[in-house]
Amino acid sequence: MAAPLITLTTDFGLSDHYVGAMKGVILGICPRARIVDISHGVGAFGIAEAAFTLSQAYPYFPRGTAHVVVVDPGVGTSRRPILAQAAGQYFVAPDNGVLSMMYAREKHKVRAISNARYFLRPVSSTFHGRDVFSPVAAHLASGIAPARFGKPITDYLRLDSDKPARTGRRTWSGAVLKVDRFGNLVTNFLAEDFPDLDKRAFAMAAGPQRIGVFAHNYAERGSGEPFLILGSAGYYEISVGQASAAKILGCAAGAPLELTLL
Amino acid sequence: MAAPLITLTTDFGLSDHYVGAMKGVILGICPRARIVDISHGVGAFGIAEAAFTLSQAYPYFPRGTAHVVVVDPGVGTSRRPILAQAAGQYFVAPDNGVLSMMYAREKHKVRAISNARYFLRPVSSTFHGRDVFSPVAAHLASGIAPARFGKPITDYLRLDSDKPARTGRRTWSGAVLKVDRFGNLVTNFLAEDFPDLDKRAFAMAAGPQRIGVFAHNYAERGSGEPFLILGSAGYYEISVGQASAAKILGCAAGAPLELTLL
Amino acid sequence: MAAPLITLTTDFGLSDHYVGAMKGVILGICPRARIVDISHGVGAFGIAEAAFTLSQAYPYFPRGTAHVVVVDPGVGTSRRPILAQAAGQYFVAPDNGVLSMMYAREKHKVRAISNARYFLRPVSSTFHGRDVFSPVAAHLASGIAPARFGKPITDYLRLDSDKPARTGRRTWSGAVLKVDRFGNLVTNFLAEDFPDLDKRAFAMAAGPQRIGVFAHNYAERGSGEPFLILGSAGYYEISVGQASAAKILGCAAGAPLELTLL
Repeated sequence: MAAPLITLTTDFGLSDHYVGAMKGVILGICPRARIVDISHGVGAFGIAEAAFTLSQAYPYFPRGTAHVVVVDPGVGTSRRPILAQAAGQYFVAPDNGVLSMMYAREKHKVRAISNARYFLRPVSSTFHGRDVFSPVAAHLASGIAPARFGKPITDYLRLDSDKPARTGRRTWSGAVLKVDRFGNLVTNFLAEDFPDLDKRAFAMAAGPQRIGVFAHNYAERGSGEPFLILGSAGYYEISVGQASAAKILGCAAGAPLELTLL
Repeated sequence: MAAPLITLTTDFGLSDHYVGAMKGVILGICPRARIVDISHGVGAFGIAEAAFTLSQAYPYFPRGTAHVVVVDPGVGTSRRPILAQAAGQYFVAPDNGVLSMMYAREKHKVRAISNARYFLRPVSSTFHGRDVFSPVAAHLASGIAPARFGKPITDYLRLDSDKPARTGRRTWSGAVLKVDRFGNLVTNFLAEDFPDLDKRAFAMAAGPQRIGVFAHNYAERGSGEPFLILGSAGYYEISVGQASAAKILGCAAGAPLELTLL
Repeated sequence: MAAPLITLTTDFGLSDHYVGAMKGVILGICPRARIVDISHGVGAFGIAEAAFTLSQAYPYFPRGTAHVVVVDPGVGTSRRPILAQAAGQYFVAPDNGVLSMMYAREKHKVRAISNARYFLRPVSSTFHGRDVFSPVAAHLASGIAPARFGKPITDYLRLDSDKPARTGRRTWSGAVLKVDRFGNLVTNFLAEDFPDLDKRAFAMAAGPQRIGVFAHNYAERGSGEPFLILGSAGYYEISVGQASAAKILGCAAGAPLELTLL
């Protein structure tokens, strides 16, 4: 039997002791667990960004994996810890919308975690990653049944999906979902909703520019020229070969975009 | 039998090859070892910061874990490598005070590591993380008895603990121990030494401000307002909801604080 | 039997989902695999830097390890994925020179990876780390024979080695190979090619200064004074005790150096 897998996605960064303490808690409870970092570099308090990051990684993990997501500005308040089951996997997170992109894709069941016997004692008011989410995931990985953690709920928080809005017969307004390390702008235009941009005329307004060029790979276009490309997440992205589109266009996450089909 | 655990805490960062080389050395000697990063983002040469980071993570790891700490400005000089045993765990580090916060808490025994048969050959003069500390930890994890590495010593280096000093009948001067990723200021005022700040009047002078407000969670106060909160490490912290107290107050690690009980 | 080891070296950074998705793919195909990060902080598109980083880590890993290197500005173009065997280990990478420093040291055999049955479907045009390199490494770790992935080739890309050039009877021009986290300048002068600099008079011109001092450890010289030291990679390095030589000398990777033997 393969050792149970637990992934971590947080906004804790890697410089402090937070992630190390979470891993110690997990291994103290479930010594066989194998821990995989998805990212600890989510922007501080970046709930939507964490939802995106998780949504791009969990589908590749095997059944039975427990994903811990801790971006939790409401830690210590009455916001609930939740345990979701979907796609044969587990998700342990605060009930603040951080699982929204997973909810939008998967049949899922959500429980409010209430059984304090699976928490560290005492529970601090500032670090539930260590005191609540890690021990719950470790107990889950040790074989404790989901029902033991708490009752099913239906009123969990779901953030609106960030789909482009139609603003005219041939125009849609959208936004930059995420800027990655390379400065690629991941847009919220899904290729499945806007097919064939590689074959038809379009204009994507971003910052001060209108982009009308589609590329099939990063190296196809000359240096400094922004282009649209089909990104690996299924969304169109705005990129520049070996340079940062974010810098060249002056766009950050949330920047408005407008697509016109010509 | 669970595979042996080795943790790493260094100031090497994650961009260079240093951490990867250490992991290769460990796995070459002890293929069953499981390696957990506590942090590689300790500030360069930050002995006190590493002592704090380690102290906040080791208590959560299971018995038998070997913790490797490499913040080592004296690498290649006559400073000794040491092996400490405490709390059923092992600590492998340079003798420069980096284990001081652990010493202050735990009954411990320290050995000077002198047996070069457990080192990589030749030993470089700049990278004992690879050539001394990692192979020693890996041999330890493989079952070599601590006594084989060297003799017990009592003259190992201990840094003074950073406790607040009483400066008046109702005043203490202290300092910022650490600024975390969110800009929270971890003070050196322990809740067990200064109980009930949540229930009584106080003033904490930090940078240009006097803070007199206590919060039970990060979300309790309005935006931009600094407050005192009981941090997860047992120290009081100065925080601002969803913003950086360090930026707002202009305070870094080491910044002076003054507490007055009113 | 020890679980198979797979290492990762990329320029993906640790903030996005890219590394997490690669790890999910690997563990989905080869649940027993143990994954070790060498570095994800290679500068974006830094092929030479990745070649150096890999070359400083792989020699310490056990036989049978599969090293995945993804610094891949040509992703989606006709550049080939390759599988190299050397030193009893495996190397999975784009054919863009990223393995050059390993080639220069080891007897090696290279195959062009062409068997798409070992890829994820569909293969994106922007993320072969997830769709090609990770699944190939995972199948290799699962026991698939190298010959199954594709045919041997001899026309793989090798970058020129960055050796110093002789420019006079007693002078050589070289360059900074790499700046590490501490600001140490790793030069391309190998100690085995320029022996005894610790025992003879020399001048190393770097930025605005001529360095004529050799130190045996970082603590030997006064603060602020640059010196030459034998680095742990076998190259001479220019360092300053507890400060950044890169900042003090204004040198970055690629900066020219000139060595004169006096």
